[in-house]
Amino acid sequence: MTPAAGRPAILTLLTDFGASDAYVGAMKGVMLGVNPALTLVDLTHQVAPQNVLEGAFLLGAAWRFFPQGAIHLAVVDPGVGTQRVALLIHGEGHYFLAPDNGLLSFVLPQSAPRRSTSSAGKVAPFQPYQSPVPPGLRAYALTNPRYWLPQVSSTFHGRDIFAAAAAHLSLGVPMEELGAPVQSLTRLRIPAPLRDGARLTGCVLHVDRFGNIVTSMPAEALAGMGRDVMVEVGGRQVRGLVETYGEGKGLVALIGSHGYLEVALAGGNAARELGVGVGAEVRVRRF
Amino acid sequence: MTPAAGRPAILTLLTDFGASDAYVGAMKGVMLGVNPALTLVDLTHQVAPQNVLEGAFLLGAAWRFFPQGAIHLAVVDPGVGTQRVALLIHGEGHYFLAPDNGLLSFVLPQSAPRRSTSSAGKVAPFQPYQSPVPPGLRAYALTNPRYWLPQVSSTFHGRDIFAAAAAHLSLGVPMEELGAPVQSLTRLRIPAPLRDGARLTGCVLHVDRFGNIVTSMPAEALAGMGRDVMVEVGGRQVRGLVETYGEGKGLVALIGSHGYLEVALAGGNAARELGVGVGAEVRVRRF
Amino acid sequence: MTPAAGRPAILTLLTDFGASDAYVGAMKGVMLGVNPALTLVDLTHQVAPQNVLEGAFLLGAAWRFFPQGAIHLAVVDPGVGTQRVALLIHGEGHYFLAPDNGLLSFVLPQSAPRRSTSSAGKVAPFQPYQSPVPPGLRAYALTNPRYWLPQVSSTFHGRDIFAAAAAHLSLGVPMEELGAPVQSLTRLRIPAPLRDGARLTGCVLHVDRFGNIVTSMPAEALAGMGRDVMVEVGGRQVRGLVETYGEGKGLVALIGSHGYLEVALAGGNAARELGVGVGAEVRVRRF
Repeated sequence: MTPAAGRPAILTLLTDFGASDAYVGAMKGVMLGVNPALTLVDLTHQVAPQNVLEGAFLLGAAWRFFPQGAIHLAVVDPGVGTQRVALLIHGEGHYFLAPDNGLLSFVLPQSAPRRSTSSAGKVAPFQPYQSPVPPGLRAYALTNPRYWLPQVSSTFHGRDIFAAAAAHLSLGVPMEELGAPVQSLTRLRIPAPLRDGARLTGCVLHVDRFGNIVTSMPAEALAGMGRDVMVEVGGRQVRGLVETYGEGKGLVALIGSHGYLEVALAGGNAARELGVGVGAEVRVRRF
Repeated sequence: MTPAAGRPAILTLLTDFGASDAYVGAMKGVMLGVNPALTLVDLTHQVAPQNVLEGAFLLGAAWRFFPQGAIHLAVVDPGVGTQRVALLIHGEGHYFLAPDNGLLSFVLPQSAPRRSTSSAGKVAPFQPYQSPVPPGLRAYALTNPRYWLPQVSSTFHGRDIFAAAAAHLSLGVPMEELGAPVQSLTRLRIPAPLRDGARLTGCVLHVDRFGNIVTSMPAEALAGMGRDVMVEVGGRQVRGLVETYGEGKGLVALIGSHGYLEVALAGGNAARELGVGVGAEVRVRRF
Repeated sequence: MTPAAGRPAILTLLTDFGASDAYVGAMKGVMLGVNPALTLVDLTHQVAPQNVLEGAFLLGAAWRFFPQGAIHLAVVDPGVGTQRVALLIHGEGHYFLAPDNGLLSFVLPQSAPRRSTSSAGKVAPFQPYQSPVPPGLRAYALTNPRYWLPQVSSTFHGRDIFAAAAAHLSLGVPMEELGAPVQSLTRLRIPAPLRDGARLTGCVLHVDRFGNIVTSMPAEALAGMGRDVMVEVGGRQVRGLVETYGEGKGLVALIGSHGYLEVALAGGNAARELGVGVGAEVRVRRF
């Protein structure tokens, strides 16, 4: 129950605060004031301002690589100061704190395939919807002001509520002491790839610094198709799967380090070359 | 007296060195060589090159959130290698190291109201002036080479003098051992808002990553005016104060997390929309 | 032999992964999972994508300032997933892990003067060539999968091999346990300045955030020439050496904090003013 039992508590941070202000610094000050032994790790603070989807994807890409007991604090919070809940979730041995706006969508078990009749199916791609807390997770709202800063601003809950509560959690304060249980939470609809006979249709989920295009198709979705596939994106066709970025010339398709199908340009920037961004359609078929 | 008594020493860093060089890394190497148990926290290294005012504002926004005993090292240093003093200051339980060029202006007690006849009043806004060390603070010059790197370059005192001295301070070396007392220091004139009957005139102090415009008007200056105020900036009028960024549409005015009046654009970038930057005039009146 | 004997293990990171993805975060998660007591220090992650030379220069600029026993992990890895070796080197009391592509060129003893007939002399500037492991260094290939992540992707060895192996090294796993010795390694040809009578010819090695132009001429190469030198770069002449950036007006030349001749613009950006970048010719003569 106590995150920090016997080892230094690890607390990761992901925000859209950028690096040119002192917002992240202030959060760290608050946290170290509560628990000076914390090991703080920045995942990224360069999420595009208020881009919940991007933050969700990046958190989903990193948290599994941390050891059990790690605490992950994510703040991309367009609704700060409104009625939106400040969440604390425990699952698979990790803790997550975030505003309840879909930022944990890639941490939660992935949504069912597209054909399902779940409520998510009626929601436009990447839009938020309400969903029951998945089995095996424990979810709370950070409602106990005893673990906040004494003065709470209406515009910076990352510092005044989340940072303080996360640091108290790292000292072993139980979840149920930090707030009240919640029964549902907000998710973004991450469209599962659609299978139509021998054809798979998905979309671009993320473009990384190198211009590599990460699609919504996990390795498993392509498992039965072999390497002789044709990938279509941005009006171009990429033939066959390779193993590494360096193989082949021009555009290549491969299973990337996120575990999803990626399209890359050897020695260049695929997203710029193809002029595609998040949400663009991607199709895969055998040839 | 010993900063690190019984808890890990916390040392924050603020510079204009950016993230694409290894200057900050070299400073951290020096510090960890002296005290490997240091907890290092980056406030920001993205201060615009040689912009002392911006560095001063950001340091002022963050330091209070750190626990007592924290050491804050700030280096924005256009005068490196010249006769400018390398300062070490203690006040309110915190330690500050910085070149004596005004970088600590928002850490020191704020300047008197605009009508005062202090020397600051005759100085153009944001320009440096000499001022006696405020009561309650202790100020030293880092003059003892025993606590510098053995070889001191003429262009990187952040590494060769400040980093080394700060790390020795974190080990409990007394301030008076690190250098000699100083009687005066450099401040930037931060113009206090001017009150003229029911009208308050100030200026823009900072624009953050989201384009939020932080003004020079602290919450207290507006305390008697209520919420029915008209804020004028960049040729536009914003009516009334809101509580959060998400309230209302278009431009909103509110007391931000820095404790100052801010103007923001819901879902957008207010500074870009208004075309204003640091120094632009801001007026507030009742309506 | 054990890096971390009696003090916290320091591990520095340098990559071209940028700050907007979660790649660095995932590496840190892996490392803290192996050794939660690690002190992690970011040198920079802003190396231009796949720019091995820039990464090599920045690593060379920072590592010496860290204490003995420090571990330096550098990943700029265009050849990830190909046959290129994953190197582990020990020298001068420091440990280095990097792909074998020249990224350690500024850590290794500098190449001989230009007139030498070494194989490097026949290689175009900044191009890679094979070279025997210099005496006094120990070099291994990270070939033991026991110290990798259980699943190794073909595109992210920084996380799956380097991070895991570096963290095990920090716990005291011997180098020979992590892999097999290698006899040669890849270096970039860093052209030593060419001396022709009273004239010295070199090139631009790096441009820093401030636009300061760092040349390939170490202080020692200019030692006999005094301060009355004429520096030519970008079609402009700079007369005399100064001590600090603030001295003189316009363009100045000085020995910078890297220990190399630099050209700077007081209060401005020299590289932009001169329109020069890495590789541009620089000449120095007495006048």
